Amino acid sequence: MVTRFLKLFVIACCVVVFFVPLVEARVRLYKWKVKYEFKSPDCYRKLAITINGRTPGPSIVAQQGDTIVVELKNSLLTENVAIHWHGIRQIGTPWMDGTEGVTQCPILPGDTFVYRFVVDRPGTYLYHAHYGMQREAGLYGSIRVSLPDGESEPFVYDYDRSIILTDWYHKSTYEQAAGLSSIPFVWVGEPQSILIQGKGKFNCNTPGIEAGLCNATHPECVPYALTVVPGKTYRLRIGSLTALSALSFEIEGHNMTVVEADGHNVEPFVVKNLFIYSGETYSVLIRADQDPSRNYWASAKVVSRNSTTPNGLAILNYYPNHPRRNPPTIPPVGPNWDDVRPRMAQSQAIKAHHDFVHSPPQTSDRVIVMLNTQNRINGNVRWSVNNVSFNLPHTPYLIAYKHNLLHTFEQRPPPDGYDSANYDIFSVASNVNATTSNGTYRLKFNTTVDIILQNANTMNRNNSETHPWHLHGHDFWVVGYGSGKFDMVNDPKNYNLVNPIMKNTVAVHPYGWTALRFRADNPGVWAFHCHIESHFYMGMGVVFEEGVERVRKLPTSIMGCGDAKVHRP
Amino acid sequence: MVTRFLKLFVIACCVVVFFVPLVEARVRLYKWKVKYEFKSPDCYRKLAITINGRTPGPSIVAQQGDTIVVELKNSLLTENVAIHWHGIRQIGTPWMDGTEGVTQCPILPGDTFVYRFVVDRPGTYLYHAHYGMQREAGLYGSIRVSLPDGESEPFVYDYDRSIILTDWYHKSTYEQAAGLSSIPFVWVGEPQSILIQGKGKFNCNTPGIEAGLCNATHPECVPYALTVVPGKTYRLRIGSLTALSALSFEIEGHNMTVVEADGHNVEPFVVKNLFIYSGETYSVLIRADQDPSRNYWASAKVVSRNSTTPNGLAILNYYPNHPRRNPPTIPPVGPNWDDVRPRMAQSQAIKAHHDFVHSPPQTSDRVIVMLNTQNRINGNVRWSVNNVSFNLPHTPYLIAYKHNLLHTFEQRPPPDGYDSANYDIFSVASNVNATTSNGTYRLKFNTTVDIILQNANTMNRNNSETHPWHLHGHDFWVVGYGSGKFDMVNDPKNYNLVNPIMKNTVAVHPYGWTALRFRADNPGVWAFHCHIESHFYMGMGVVFEEGVERVRKLPTSIMGCGDAKVHRP
Repeated sequence: MVTRFLKLFVIACCVVVFFVPLVEARVRLYKWKVKYEFKSPDCYRKLAITINGRTPGPSIVAQQGDTIVVELKNSLLTENVAIHWHGIRQIGTPWMDGTEGVTQCPILPGDTFVYRFVVDRPGTYLYHAHYGMQREAGLYGSIRVSLPDGESEPFVYDYDRSIILTDWYHKSTYEQAAGLSSIPFVWVGEPQSILIQGKGKFNCNTPGIEAGLCNATHPECVPYALTVVPGKTYRLRIGSLTALSALSFEIEGHNMTVVEADGHNVEPFVVKNLFIYSGETYSVLIRADQDPSRNYWASAKVVSRNSTTPNGLAILNYYPNHPRRNPPTIPPVGPNWDDVRPRMAQSQAIKAHHDFVHSPPQTSDRVIVMLNTQNRINGNVRWSVNNVSFNLPHTPYLIAYKHNLLHTFEQRPPPDGYDSANYDIFSVASNVNATTSNGTYRLKFNTTVDIILQNANTMNRNNSETHPWHLHGHDFWVVGYGSGKFDMVNDPKNYNLVNPIMKNTVAVHPYGWTALRFRADNPGVWAFHCHIESHFYMGMGVVFEEGVERVRKLPTSIMGCGDAKVHRP
Repeated sequence: MVTRFLKLFVIACCVVVFFVPLVEARVRLYKWKVKYEFKSPDCYRKLAITINGRTPGPSIVAQQGDTIVVELKNSLLTENVAIHWHGIRQIGTPWMDGTEGVTQCPILPGDTFVYRFVVDRPGTYLYHAHYGMQREAGLYGSIRVSLPDGESEPFVYDYDRSIILTDWYHKSTYEQAAGLSSIPFVWVGEPQSILIQGKGKFNCNTPGIEAGLCNATHPECVPYALTVVPGKTYRLRIGSLTALSALSFEIEGHNMTVVEADGHNVEPFVVKNLFIYSGETYSVLIRADQDPSRNYWASAKVVSRNSTTPNGLAILNYYPNHPRRNPPTIPPVGPNWDDVRPRMAQSQAIKAHHDFVHSPPQTSDRVIVMLNTQNRINGNVRWSVNNVSFNLPHTPYLIAYKHNLLHTFEQRPPPDGYDSANYDIFSVASNVNATTSNGTYRLKFNTTVDIILQNANTMNRNNSETHPWHLHGHDFWVVGYGSGKFDMVNDPKNYNLVNPIMKNTVAVHPYGWTALRFRADNPGVWAFHCHIESHFYMGMGVVFEEGVERVRKLPTSIMGCGDAKVHRP
């Protein structure tokens, strides 16, 4: 009898030990097959990179603390691949960041790479290819992490929906990349379409397009419809993964309350239109409180560039109206493309929610000013930071640092600033002495670093672009924005060190500056770059190393390229 | 004085030891950079894979016994590469054959792979990409190996020239491959142009093409001109690397004397037009004995398919006429596309030169009959050999065999024959039970093997295609051709075992058969496949292993993929 009781007790203990943790932190397993398929997302047929036949790929839906396991099979014919988990800091797993050349070798055709990482915070994140220009070929999707059971956000809603905004080119990414590297430079131009959750509408009557490729009635280009029940409140998670375009998103007749940015709760504020830059995510609350007898347009318009791309359109569908019934109105035109003020105003309006303030360090240990310029280097058009145009090495930095392969990249770091006194940010780039390099910034572990992104004029007169910069492995505090040239003495006095929002992606506005602060507390090697696909390709990025000596033994699965080819496990 | 004499003697010896071999067998070093560039070879701009900016790539010109060293830098963005040295048997260096999946892992972006091999025989050979469908993206060129000093061919000529014939698609190879793998099957159709030494002319007034891509006056599409001096005799080396097309090549008003095929001297015979299949090379002698006051058309016409592709044109330019002066005549129309008889007749006319007969073994140890059929497998259109459709593994066979990674591919070999008695080669393929496999044929070392290529009807009624089969690592004797179904009892009695030509590529004609014999005497793993790019991609190939236990230690440079990723050198 006692033996039997003991047995039961042991079994009960086992149940507790083995099953309770499984409930609290699940493993979410995804099996993905990546390949090329013909798709017509805007009615025009072209090749797209799909996951399990889809673009956008499957959504990852998880709960805080879950372990995500993605078994990624590369079924491309001759092309490698790598996927970045955008907004996931990869604490303790820097080798799972998915950044080719920085944290891993590319995944070869036929190979299956297993990404395994913990989603340690609730919020709205993204995933996308981080190799060559594959992201804009359609290899992307969303990650939604919910709070633990019993916890709730500081805002209420009835339903939760996600969309991703992208821009879409009819030229292949190979053609685009070859043009960017050509002498003379060949620019692909503005995108043909804006896609809302992978759906857009190109005008098939456009002259000059190849016959037989555009089909206005193709089922793949039916506009995305967000169906709502009158009276209910919707949390709409909006991510942007545009290749190029800054966007203004709005829904006819409906205000939006911004409540989340890049996984952080925002002190709520109301907007008519939301400016969103590539790499950013927002949650907005939308109440279905308008005339329920009709549908409404949702529209995404290109701003910051004088673009020829028509607005992307979707339908806010009031149930029980048919989701394909066009609204009776003309879609919203959106704000003027060249009006920077409302964009700057929105940036400045985003503060941490008063109950969720992460106080930033009040001082920093190092300030790096990063002048963003467009330069011609050896005949190529390039982007530079402090006169250095970045190029990726073929041995990933993480492996090079850990395995002492320091000969594989330039050991001289790029500069911490530029000749501010003698550089006119309002004139065509005069610094003709820019160079290319793959040198990195080495940050002292556990120090506080300030980054000042300083915008400037491009190679065209009276032109300065918007650059959304994305930091891997961290969130940063956005402590200030400004116009013109950053003043090292006076501008820091106005930093918001009380309730700055934390983000992983932030814009620097035309002719402006943006100041960030972060703690170099995540051992690894992390890219920080403009999230415009062509800009990073053309050199607009840097790499930070911090505490790499604390990184554990690297998995062999990330190796196999450059000097990380021959290895003895 | 004696010391001084001794010193001189030692120096003289050194000179002999170190310098004489260098003169006899040189090392020829090539440094190649492979990348995508926009090219307009037929006036239509599209991406091409280039070597040092060129397509065709640089010619390799060497002398028998030379060592060729090609340092190949892959400067593609996300794509791997591999190059095959077509016709070079790689005796002792099977790992240098350049066949992705068979003899090596692909070369990653940023990597430099060093190909090093000896050209041990004189003749006309080719090189081209052997990965995915990269060959038809423009990655190819010619290899010309001359005789040792003091030796000469059994024919005389004044000048030596080389051209390569290709067909050219405006769709990218990615689009073509995606279509071939699609359900339903999407066929790219006939090529837009035939290129002669990389130059063709697409009609820019063709309706439906995208605006702005075709420029009839683009300097890259000036017709190729072969300039000749009146009265002189030219050896013209002609190779075909078409993706699809069988061609008939002729020069207006000039007979051609065939003297070489795939590196072997031919008993000379005269033709008006030369049929040439993808993977073949010929040398023909042309005497510039016509009216020297004008130029003449050279024309390449598609045969064996009812093609819409216009003839490819070049100019035989009689010096001192201007090379761009069009001949005053209408270009030759060429033979009827569907007349098999003259093609069969040419095949049968090719015999070894009487002074250069390599006598074949009079008996064989094994006969493998290979039925070539088109099948639907799991909804995909595929090509099969004896009901088995080939697919490449991701661990190259050579490494798998040598490193005992036999789990990486199917161990059951494909069959040595088919159910000949019950299969009607004149009907639409009825064998619905075809399967895919990457199993190999294992050949007993130093045995003699007969291969009977048996053609059949495709999936379309009254249709049988021409397939040029190419064997890696060997030349074979072409011992017989026939129409209809091969008769195992009677047809071998008519084999030519006296003076058969040796080749590395041979056609099997529509509804016909071709019999080959070779010695399995080259330790390694060798592909044998239809040289039509899409046919091999769709499964029309096999792999032979022979004497792999005699292969020396493999270089680590060929590794890095599949199960050959983790290795301990």
